[in-house]
Amino acid sequence: MTSNETSEQASDETRKPADAAERTGVWFVGARGSVATTAVVGALGVSHGLAPTTGLVTEHPELLPDGLPDLSSLVFGGHDVSSQSLLKKAEALAAGGVVPAAVVSAVSAEVETVDAEVRPGHVSGEESTAEAVERLASDIASFRDRHGLARVVVVDVASTQPPVDDPEQMVGLEDPLPVGAVYALAAFRAGAPFVSFTPSPCLRLPVVVEAAERSGLPYAGCDGKTGETLMKSALAPMFVMRALELRSWTSVNLLGGGDGETLADPEAARSKTLAKREGLDAIAGRPVPGPMHIDQVEDLGEWKTAWDHVRFDGFLGTRMTLQFTWQGCDSALAAPLVLDLVRLVSAAHAAGRSGPLPELAFFFKDPIGATEHRLSEQWRDLVAWREGLIA
Amino acid sequence: MTSNETSEQASDETRKPADAAERTGVWFVGARGSVATTAVVGALGVSHGLAPTTGLVTEHPELLPDGLPDLSSLVFGGHDVSSQSLLKKAEALAAGGVVPAAVVSAVSAEVETVDAEVRPGHVSGEESTAEAVERLASDIASFRDRHGLARVVVVDVASTQPPVDDPEQMVGLEDPLPVGAVYALAAFRAGAPFVSFTPSPCLRLPVVVEAAERSGLPYAGCDGKTGETLMKSALAPMFVMRALELRSWTSVNLLGGGDGETLADPEAARSKTLAKREGLDAIAGRPVPGPMHIDQVEDLGEWKTAWDHVRFDGFLGTRMTLQFTWQGCDSALAAPLVLDLVRLVSAAHAAGRSGPLPELAFFFKDPIGATEHRLSEQWRDLVAWREGLIA
Amino acid sequence: MTSNETSEQASDETRKPADAAERTGVWFVGARGSVATTAVVGALGVSHGLAPTTGLVTEHPELLPDGLPDLSSLVFGGHDVSSQSLLKKAEALAAGGVVPAAVVSAVSAEVETVDAEVRPGHVSGEESTAEAVERLASDIASFRDRHGLARVVVVDVASTQPPVDDPEQMVGLEDPLPVGAVYALAAFRAGAPFVSFTPSPCLRLPVVVEAAERSGLPYAGCDGKTGETLMKSALAPMFVMRALELRSWTSVNLLGGGDGETLADPEAARSKTLAKREGLDAIAGRPVPGPMHIDQVEDLGEWKTAWDHVRFDGFLGTRMTLQFTWQGCDSALAAPLVLDLVRLVSAAHAAGRSGPLPELAFFFKDPIGATEHRLSEQWRDLVAWREGLIA
Amino acid sequence: MTSNETSEQASDETRKPADAAERTGVWFVGARGSVATTAVVGALGVSHGLAPTTGLVTEHPELLPDGLPDLSSLVFGGHDVSSQSLLKKAEALAAGGVVPAAVVSAVSAEVETVDAEVRPGHVSGEESTAEAVERLASDIASFRDRHGLARVVVVDVASTQPPVDDPEQMVGLEDPLPVGAVYALAAFRAGAPFVSFTPSPCLRLPVVVEAAERSGLPYAGCDGKTGETLMKSALAPMFVMRALELRSWTSVNLLGGGDGETLADPEAARSKTLAKREGLDAIAGRPVPGPMHIDQVEDLGEWKTAWDHVRFDGFLGTRMTLQFTWQGCDSALAAPLVLDLVRLVSAAHAAGRSGPLPELAFFFKDPIGATEHRLSEQWRDLVAWREGLIA
Repeated sequence: MTSNETSEQASDETRKPADAAERTGVWFVGARGSVATTAVVGALGVSHGLAPTTGLVTEHPELLPDGLPDLSSLVFGGHDVSSQSLLKKAEALAAGGVVPAAVVSAVSAEVETVDAEVRPGHVSGEESTAEAVERLASDIASFRDRHGLARVVVVDVASTQPPVDDPEQMVGLEDPLPVGAVYALAAFRAGAPFVSFTPSPCLRLPVVVEAAERSGLPYAGCDGKTGETLMKSALAPMFVMRALELRSWTSVNLLGGGDGETLADPEAARSKTLAKREGLDAIAGRPVPGPMHIDQVEDLGEWKTAWDHVRFDGFLGTRMTLQFTWQGCDSALAAPLVLDLVRLVSAAHAAGRSGPLPELAFFFKDPIGATEHRLSEQWRDLVAWREGLIA
Repeated sequence: MTSNETSEQASDETRKPADAAERTGVWFVGARGSVATTAVVGALGVSHGLAPTTGLVTEHPELLPDGLPDLSSLVFGGHDVSSQSLLKKAEALAAGGVVPAAVVSAVSAEVETVDAEVRPGHVSGEESTAEAVERLASDIASFRDRHGLARVVVVDVASTQPPVDDPEQMVGLEDPLPVGAVYALAAFRAGAPFVSFTPSPCLRLPVVVEAAERSGLPYAGCDGKTGETLMKSALAPMFVMRALELRSWTSVNLLGGGDGETLADPEAARSKTLAKREGLDAIAGRPVPGPMHIDQVEDLGEWKTAWDHVRFDGFLGTRMTLQFTWQGCDSALAAPLVLDLVRLVSAAHAAGRSGPLPELAFFFKDPIGATEHRLSEQWRDLVAWREGLIA
Repeated sequence: MTSNETSEQASDETRKPADAAERTGVWFVGARGSVATTAVVGALGVSHGLAPTTGLVTEHPELLPDGLPDLSSLVFGGHDVSSQSLLKKAEALAAGGVVPAAVVSAVSAEVETVDAEVRPGHVSGEESTAEAVERLASDIASFRDRHGLARVVVVDVASTQPPVDDPEQMVGLEDPLPVGAVYALAAFRAGAPFVSFTPSPCLRLPVVVEAAERSGLPYAGCDGKTGETLMKSALAPMFVMRALELRSWTSVNLLGGGDGETLADPEAARSKTLAKREGLDAIAGRPVPGPMHIDQVEDLGEWKTAWDHVRFDGFLGTRMTLQFTWQGCDSALAAPLVLDLVRLVSAAHAAGRSGPLPELAFFFKDPIGATEHRLSEQWRDLVAWREGLIA
Repeated sequence: MTSNETSEQASDETRKPADAAERTGVWFVGARGSVATTAVVGALGVSHGLAPTTGLVTEHPELLPDGLPDLSSLVFGGHDVSSQSLLKKAEALAAGGVVPAAVVSAVSAEVETVDAEVRPGHVSGEESTAEAVERLASDIASFRDRHGLARVVVVDVASTQPPVDDPEQMVGLEDPLPVGAVYALAAFRAGAPFVSFTPSPCLRLPVVVEAAERSGLPYAGCDGKTGETLMKSALAPMFVMRALELRSWTSVNLLGGGDGETLADPEAARSKTLAKREGLDAIAGRPVPGPMHIDQVEDLGEWKTAWDHVRFDGFLGTRMTLQFTWQGCDSALAAPLVLDLVRLVSAAHAAGRSGPLPELAFFFKDPIGATEHRLSEQWRDLVAWREGLIA
């Protein structure tokens, strides 16, 4: 299969309006990780009526859910470097209180079917970038063909990746591309829209941007906005609207096992920290000082605790303080958003949209193509865009 | 002076477009209280360049501040039942850290001038309602005449008032009207727009609504949104937009001396509690359970601490928690909003607007004429309305 | 069986030093409630090596655990008004995350054996107090005989009981005794030491005190110190030792389903509130102002969240604040303490102690016979007393 | 003056029992800093009856205050590298809300008198260590002579100093001694007891320990226990006594201008962090994992906010959480302790004690000569030692 063939095939198969009989494929990069596993178990559980649609933004009437792919019509597969099965992961998540054990039991056979669709991921150094792109794209295209899918949306939910020091130098396959970029290139090669849900520089590298342009495919990212940054995007506008002067904003994030482990790597943490800072400063219209920490606290497991301390001035300089503590489960916050993005990007693809989708900024810490970080404004942009898709 | 004369005078003098030479009067009900004193000291301090405009919403470019009355053009007076001077109050506030001592010193002579414009307030039982309305209206009209003011905006910043059990029965001056209603009637009698910044049922009583209608004056209220409820109006929409299920929302408010003392009266507290609940339930679209407490903790002085505990469900029912602690100074939060309201209502009056101003819901816990409680949407409504004023 | 016989039997059987072959009975009032169920499951789990001894104070070397009844030697039974089985309750607790599901499965047969030892509890009005005491005492004595136990410790872990308005009037069986008093009388009638772990006035009623004296049995209570009050007894001494002036101490307790439901009854809540206040004031040496709330927040389930806000002055009156949030599971905090008390009271009984045991104040909010509320001092008293038992 | 003369003089003058007519000198290293200034203003304010004794531990009856030097008998002087006057500093502290402006005004003349007793401090590199020791000792001895003082207690309240990598190599004046060590040597040379209230390795360096031994003087340190570590020493024993398993303890310290600036130096921060960790691990009996941060947040001024997040297990491994937020003013917490230490060390000197004073561990994060970190036990040790001083 050549790159051209893949793209041709994509444009032939996918550029038609969505209809009820169509099925959308979901291809996870990191298919056996916590987020993908929760998304799979949850999509199955909700489809079978075993759980409510809590957390699924696309079930809002304003987002016209009837025109989006139904959860029960999604077909899952993906890449992973781990060989631990999805079902094992699901059981571990149930033990940790992330997903209900009863739901995992009820959908275990289907989870095993999904696991059979997981292909080996890309490990830097084991193959050339060109080879990897070809192999990964072939996996995606083959998945689409095998299941007769209208389209496949590739979603990167792998671990946080370090920032790239000279992103503008990443112009070709021979450059030292970050691993997320390899998957993005593979998606575009396979004619599949791409969503980067992890902190990653990949969607800003020239080599990726150009491939996306050539493919005419839509894409969205980066870094799902699930917890503390979500809070900031809801709260910081309040201070601005009320003309209260933000003097400092301190953020402390305690992460358990999985995500925490990755972020114990200072380089990866830097990537996440940059994304988290950007939104606040953009909303405030200037840099807001204050330390930001991301720490691993192993015994928190899949849970995350964030403490934020906000010092602000009121009238005549009176000093006031807001503190909040957010105790959330990142996988349970991320998984429904991933499903939302699949539904929306699938609809965008069906409607012939291409390039970055800035109107999906609502979902991201570091939205590609967008400068709006205020949650309510992002919501309005999203609703308007969704309406426009069916106009 | 008869009622008719007062109103005639008002409509003659005030129904012309604002111009630079015009001056706006500010008449406080509760002129020697913490909020009014902070507003007076602050307006003077900001006018003299002694303090920044922090907290003044109307300084936002989007609200077109150049077309609004300048702080330095405001002339202050008011009613109060207390005989402690404004300057004494200002010094007490400086000692408590609410306003800077240096600003109070610098503007002390002007504060004394304002104090000379304070007239005795109304005490139920000391005069008939009809007499009170006549006397209070006369004070307001006389203030306007004496200073050659284009208009006077009356702002009720007196203590929280108990709810009225049968508001629809309050149809005439012979009924047992709450004290805020008497001031509202006096304002309308004097041809002055009225703002209720305190928790009070008065703007919903038939007798007041009818008087407002007859007067053709604009009015706004009730209950300034300064702290915990402000936070709720910023945060609750986040849960709704993200489809996170609010399971309970507990609110605890610790208030110091002044406000706390009033609210130690369970009836008054009930009035405030009702206003605080309403917004959350309206945003959530259903009643959100959870206790709400308002307690007096005397040693907090002018400060307030609120603790909120929010339990919500994520995907598949995963249980998560948000807690926040807000440590604010209510007077320093309220005072700039009061000045904002004076500027905006003055502009509305100059533009010939009448009746309730629902577009000012941004400022209130319990907005008259409005059902929108989401802060960002209220902001948009406000900006659009402000633009409309000069169209 | 007559009252005399019961007591005789008790004194014959139980007044000998403990030895390894002896077995101690544990008779729970409220045997099918959360605390008793957690204690039973936990004692079995720890005995079988399925869980560590976390939370068991009596495993501290300073408390000489080797001389105390081993967990594996305890035999459980009790009274309850509920007919829902212990195993059902254990499974519900496992679903709520209070006890590990794996432990419940492993000990389920033994839990059912315990359930078979549960007898119907006393419901006011269904029998006379005299009849109830006789019947309940007979159940306890019969349990002891049937299992050949060296002694039975009765522990009241039933729901919070309202305070009694005129406790000094409760001098005979014909008075309207609170239900806890009936169980205490039954325990003494059966020759069994009694521990009141619930907020209850019963151990201060003349009729109960006199019965205890006549029986020569030891007893301890009231109201297990598990969460917020534990924190206070650790923290308040710090302020006193450091001469920091406590200006106010606000306490808010959010309780889930079970305990919360009982405390939604204001009378029962008053009982608990009184016990919680007393310790702080005793440590501070004066009443410390500040509101205290106990609220039911149903979705918290078996969990409890307490928020405390402490305002204190430092040198020269500088105002400072401490806030804490305690998120605990009351049953998991209470259950090991209940087992500790059984072991210690059993040893006291074996050593011939009688009357109130003030040295067990470490375990209680409202310690009978003791005035010491500082945790570290209570610990010292406990260690010294334990050493004295074997001297 | 030679070293010998200084010491002779010291032993002649000071080894007699304290009596009422005696006056004690207080010599601050860092005399124009926040802590020393607050101590001076506070001692004068309390002496004149302008402020209560809040925060002064030595006013506890159990510490027999009548036998200790009266605050009004203390004579202040010190070294500093800053030339900003004590009065200016005091006024700045009053503006920041650390000390009451009225007290500063009332004692301003006396503060200026103290300022006249401040001599230039030691700056590494500007003179040899031997020269510095000689010069500084001469300043101290001259102060004592000039005022006819019974003794002078030297208290180091200068900024945090970095740890020393090879402390055991610091055996002579020719080694690169940390600046605190130079002051300690000067104190001993001058025959003055020494207290290190700042995080500093100096009291553990062989060259200092040997000089202390030769001088026969008492000394105490290090690092005043004022805020978060104080909380830990009160709370951690609670977990141990209750057999609750500490899984992680996260500590975040936000410090304002002064102290924060020093600690922005990672080396200095390391010194403080080490001292803060040590106590918790000692109390728990094993290392407790968890990140610890010390951050500068400039707008906090003299204030400090600490957030601690404690994860612990209860019975059967049930996971629970304690969080606390401490908002304190470090100078107002430290200053009375500094005065307490002067009074106690003065009494120890008068009683002929020499060497480290481990019974003062109550006051320190990193107590010299002591292993006890539990606050209540430290208090008991202190009370017993105080009683022993007069036996």
